[in-house]
Amino acid sequence: MGDKERIRIFDTTLRDGEQAPGYSMNLEEKLRIASRLQALGVDIIEAGFAIASPGDFESVREIARHVDGPVVASLARALEKDLDAAGEAVKEARRPRIHLFLATSDLHLEYKLKMTREHALEQVRKMVTYARNLCDDIEFSAEDASRSDLDYLCKVVETAIASGATTINLPDTVGYSLPHELERMVRTVHTSVPNMDKAILSVHNHNDLGFAVANSLAGVMGGARQVECTLCGIGERAGNASLEEFVMAVKTRGDVLPYDTGIDTREITKSARLLSSITGVSVFPSKAIVGTNAFAHESGIHQHGMMANAKTYEIMTPESVGLKKTALVLGKHSGQHAFVKRLEELGYSLPHERIPALFEDFKITADRKKTITDRDLIALVESSSTGAAEIWHLVDFVVNSGNMITSTAVVTLSKDGKKYQEVASGTGPVYASLRAVEKIIRHPFSLEDYKLQAVTEHRDALGEVLVKISDGEGFYRGRGVSTDVIEASILSCLAAVNRMLDNSSYAAGQGLSARAMSFENDMLSSHSDKAKDREVSHG
Amino acid sequence: MGDKERIRIFDTTLRDGEQAPGYSMNLEEKLRIASRLQALGVDIIEAGFAIASPGDFESVREIARHVDGPVVASLARALEKDLDAAGEAVKEARRPRIHLFLATSDLHLEYKLKMTREHALEQVRKMVTYARNLCDDIEFSAEDASRSDLDYLCKVVETAIASGATTINLPDTVGYSLPHELERMVRTVHTSVPNMDKAILSVHNHNDLGFAVANSLAGVMGGARQVECTLCGIGERAGNASLEEFVMAVKTRGDVLPYDTGIDTREITKSARLLSSITGVSVFPSKAIVGTNAFAHESGIHQHGMMANAKTYEIMTPESVGLKKTALVLGKHSGQHAFVKRLEELGYSLPHERIPALFEDFKITADRKKTITDRDLIALVESSSTGAAEIWHLVDFVVNSGNMITSTAVVTLSKDGKKYQEVASGTGPVYASLRAVEKIIRHPFSLEDYKLQAVTEHRDALGEVLVKISDGEGFYRGRGVSTDVIEASILSCLAAVNRMLDNSSYAAGQGLSARAMSFENDMLSSHSDKAKDREVSHG
Repeated sequence: MGDKERIRIFDTTLRDGEQAPGYSMNLEEKLRIASRLQALGVDIIEAGFAIASPGDFESVREIARHVDGPVVASLARALEKDLDAAGEAVKEARRPRIHLFLATSDLHLEYKLKMTREHALEQVRKMVTYARNLCDDIEFSAEDASRSDLDYLCKVVETAIASGATTINLPDTVGYSLPHELERMVRTVHTSVPNMDKAILSVHNHNDLGFAVANSLAGVMGGARQVECTLCGIGERAGNASLEEFVMAVKTRGDVLPYDTGIDTREITKSARLLSSITGVSVFPSKAIVGTNAFAHESGIHQHGMMANAKTYEIMTPESVGLKKTALVLGKHSGQHAFVKRLEELGYSLPHERIPALFEDFKITADRKKTITDRDLIALVESSSTGAAEIWHLVDFVVNSGNMITSTAVVTLSKDGKKYQEVASGTGPVYASLRAVEKIIRHPFSLEDYKLQAVTEHRDALGEVLVKISDGEGFYRGRGVSTDVIEASILSCLAAVNRMLDNSSYAAGQGLSARAMSFENDMLSSHSDKAKDREVSHG
Repeated sequence: MGDKERIRIFDTTLRDGEQAPGYSMNLEEKLRIASRLQALGVDIIEAGFAIASPGDFESVREIARHVDGPVVASLARALEKDLDAAGEAVKEARRPRIHLFLATSDLHLEYKLKMTREHALEQVRKMVTYARNLCDDIEFSAEDASRSDLDYLCKVVETAIASGATTINLPDTVGYSLPHELERMVRTVHTSVPNMDKAILSVHNHNDLGFAVANSLAGVMGGARQVECTLCGIGERAGNASLEEFVMAVKTRGDVLPYDTGIDTREITKSARLLSSITGVSVFPSKAIVGTNAFAHESGIHQHGMMANAKTYEIMTPESVGLKKTALVLGKHSGQHAFVKRLEELGYSLPHERIPALFEDFKITADRKKTITDRDLIALVESSSTGAAEIWHLVDFVVNSGNMITSTAVVTLSKDGKKYQEVASGTGPVYASLRAVEKIIRHPFSLEDYKLQAVTEHRDALGEVLVKISDGEGFYRGRGVSTDVIEASILSCLAAVNRMLDNSSYAAGQGLSARAMSFENDMLSSHSDKAKDREVSHG
């Protein structure tokens, strides 16, 4: 291993990944991901795009302050105001980087930037120089490199390095390149740019045609020593190269590949799970490395071979990516010691003060289910928020519903030891319950998204509801885990509500607004007066 | 295009794909997929593994009877009984194929088959000869080819061709190969096997390290002219090469790749949707080609570029894969003509007799929602079963539930114009409702799986519940779409129940069994006596 060349892993889950529809995260969530990436051992964390919004700026700055180990980068266009914002946002990082980009393909120059090649080259020289005066670690990306004229691309790279860039990234921005083309581009730049020894080459591949990981390997074989990727391959459109696939390919095929990375592969599964828990987007079961089927050997033939010798069908072990087999079954009689031990085996070392509340949640779940699986535990840990203050708690609720009657809900919540009860009607039991919550807290909000999923298999499943609410000023997500769908819905709503109130410096009895009740999630409603139509149509 | 070489697309969604956990399908579902694959234009449909079970045998036989165009293949081990079953199952196909396999790597020979290389070679000779006497179209797969000794592999291939094999497949069974290795293996076999001109070379790549599509292209560049793949890349473990990615890569990069396929790419989106609708497994949003984000251009920079020239960020059009933009918004005032027209634009040409019931469903949905999106329409069409007889219908229901009380449900169903009502209690509203259904139909079943998803975005969402039930003899899936979660649950259960009863030649008043009520899906229950514990823990 000693003579293997180190490939730097540049993770852009929080920038390119977070840009994808459905993956936006708030500050607390981004900090949790950043802390996971640090534990995973990535070399560079791209924390965001500082100029994009005040929220983005703050996220980059907070991540820069918190992260200890990896370089923290902010993206910037090749414009002074962008570079100023990026430099300011990362300046408190122990190891700051500014990552600026300018497109180099004629298509982008002509239609998007409306610049000549000469003008763009001059812009690269000026802006890299400007950036280098703000920060010592400068990455320059030639956007749409794979569709750029290769001679011109080499000239741009040479100029960027001469102006102070220390990393040169050649993105396949639209996921167009075939592996042999990408390898040729990287090799050409690597061998023909005269000052190439003064910078590290990087690749950034998109998966539009399914080649992102293969192109990353091709880039490395052509001379790249940094690979840009994301957890689970999320990102714009079809996403980026998947971190776990690239890293495990390099590791598993160490017999022929003279490279290694600084990734602690045993942290991979937990990292993917955290992302999916935060965003509410489940990983596809067939996803390589981190999908639930990735290490499942279902068919009889495969099982037969697996029993004879695991290597017949398994090229890497589940343990190597941190997927541990259950050694110990937990249930209602398990003590706190066994509970904490199992969490540690699963890779969670929790702050001491969080244990009692988690253990209580565990006991409640254990009362309802015969056995608690590892996935139940992971759901419990990852759904317990540490971010928002717990302002409102659920005491009890009763719902009455049907397709021929109006649904009603009576909900009791407590705050500061005092109980509040409200009744509400609605076109469905969940709708009615959430309206009762809204009446109690006296702070109108609208339901923007609602999702229920079973987080564990089969009949003993825990249900997880993810909601997104808005009070017109911001979006707040909440998560609730319960064995009952309506209870999970109310709990998820309260989690979002507590986050919203925490954010809006709400005080008891205040915050009543003239805005109308805005709940209208038809999905949650049943409609008494429509049932007759349905009978007619089915009868 | 005329001088491009044709690559045959061998689809194994119904065999390798169906083997993956969570993807098993019943006969009717397999026939729907097979019919889609025919419309998509695949060259070969691998319909199943005939010897595996009587159900598999019947599926292969029925698909063989129905399909008109593509070759229909059954998998078989290199054993006489397997070949007999495969030959029998495909014999009514217009174009039958037997696909037999034997492992060629020392690892598999030693640990799984416990055979010497010589013994295996002799088995290939005998079994390919045997198969060829049953069928003219014989494919032989050298399982684990990519980890086999290359000289030995060439000997096996030569023997298989000499014994009558017309297609030779070289699978990367465990997804271990890197693209340049796979290309070298295929090229070596292609150039050194003396009788190679008498058969077509094929590749079958798994995605364990993320290279399945790149390896498929590498195989083609090495001389393969058949590619084995699946819709959405499903399959054992991390799945197979994704059909849509390989096909769109060949098409999009036609500028440098001298190949084409017979796939009508405009059928791709609908095919992926049908698979996901049947199996209940959503496609990952970032999935290339068919994910919901694949053609989304979210960030401001990309949108700016897109407006100037779509090619800046879009290398293929959504229309090329059958993803059409909404031209026309449907609502409660839309007539049947507009409804049918929009379905046709979405690619559905439905039998005339299905239109009135679908239009009724549409009207009911339109009453509840302001606008009906294309995804709503797709959900309506694909969730309307054409397979099972409609035995039981929902008339009405009322539920009463809470975390401090026992849930009750009163459900009224009708059959043959007669109404039946039952009340049941349970630990949650869905649980109680389904128990009432079970009491009415007098045929005990257990709930094996339950899943709720929003099929359309945001507040106007349609909820889709997917259930799997079992009566101890078989598994039956049901799907229910409604704007109300409890109604969707009951409807999905009735769909499964009707399928179950249809299958078990159930007659009114009969079928009462001594088996105990077996509902125990805790996920669906609320637990009155546990609420106090929770209060203590949260208070």
